[in-house]
Amino acid sequence: MTQTRETLSFKPGEVILYPGVPGPRDRVYRVLEGLVRLEAVDEEGNALTLRLVRPGGYFGEEALSGTERTYFAEAVTEVAVEALPKEPRPEELLDLVAHLAQALSESYRRIERLATQRLKNRMAAALLELAETPLAREEEEGLVLRATHDELAAAVGSVRETVTKVIGELVREGYIRSGYGKILLKDVKGLKELAQSRGEGR
Amino acid sequence: MTQTRETLSFKPGEVILYPGVPGPRDRVYRVLEGLVRLEAVDEEGNALTLRLVRPGGYFGEEALSGTERTYFAEAVTEVAVEALPKEPRPEELLDLVAHLAQALSESYRRIERLATQRLKNRMAAALLELAETPLAREEEEGLVLRATHDELAAAVGSVRETVTKVIGELVREGYIRSGYGKILLKDVKGLKELAQSRGEGR
Repeated sequence: MTQTRETLSFKPGEVILYPGVPGPRDRVYRVLEGLVRLEAVDEEGNALTLRLVRPGGYFGEEALSGTERTYFAEAVTEVAVEALPKEPRPEELLDLVAHLAQALSESYRRIERLATQRLKNRMAAALLELAETPLAREEEEGLVLRATHDELAAAVGSVRETVTKVIGELVREGYIRSGYGKILLKDVKGLKELAQSRGEGR
Repeated sequence: MTQTRETLSFKPGEVILYPGVPGPRDRVYRVLEGLVRLEAVDEEGNALTLRLVRPGGYFGEEALSGTERTYFAEAVTEVAVEALPKEPRPEELLDLVAHLAQALSESYRRIERLATQRLKNRMAAALLELAETPLAREEEEGLVLRATHDELAAAVGSVRETVTKVIGELVREGYIRSGYGKILLKDVKGLKELAQSRGEGR
């Protein structure tokens, strides 16, 4: 990484990119620190998480394709990003290609989950995905996740009321403990099994 | 395009790539002619279309990222592809980046549809997407699509029985005509409206 590149910083909740057709000043961004969430928001304000971008990952790739951006890119934690130059070097392009291929692959898995898994199983997968972001912290009692039910609804493509019910089930069945915007992952192995199975019905 | 590059040809139904971790001989492919379908298949044999790749598009990008491939790439029509060299030129990489960004953007839309739209509305969107592939042909009576109910089920992430019901509804409501693996898009404008709305409930 070149030291002369500009680094931009954002606070939790700040919007980094808005939906729209990318203009000539738009850039592709690389996350240096923190967590960025790409999310679509419908007319009623329901959010749907499309992708989480961790350090080393990129977003805003529409600047290179000209495709209309349909999502908000939002800082979930304190975030630092750097802008890629208009004409990236070949090794930067290769790194970007690898990241986009990985992102596509994650999208495919999300499509599969939405098409075939029950909400409870998708929720287990979402909790495990979030557990690998800066939102999770190893505490005395175990792995603790900071996430509201609204955020979990966006992660699984559902609404808060339904999510609250499913979280209640997972608590009763001993997979997690929940309270005050925090979720303790009590049984990671069990969650992994849930995340890998389809659940009853289709 | 350089004339010395190797072109590979496939017949309808032939598998071009199998699921698995890409090996050192794996390449990224660019579609020159025809239609390639990327699809996941579960243990019960249910297929789910993840992406359609048209001429000018790429697939097999895991060769550059090392990500495990979870799908089959299958020739839907007669297909011709060329393999990208191990070390693509910068302009080829830029073209690949633009295509992957576009593919990601299409995935996001698919995720949104699965999370928020009713099956009938998703079906309208799938029919319109297929109408822009070599599976569609302008005939005397209008735009005709060659697609079985199994293929439509894979396109919307459902199963054949349910799809047959929804196709029946669309026929009764005058949007399409259906028979012998062919679908006539009678009311493209109406289908577009359906594809853009959510449908009742969530």
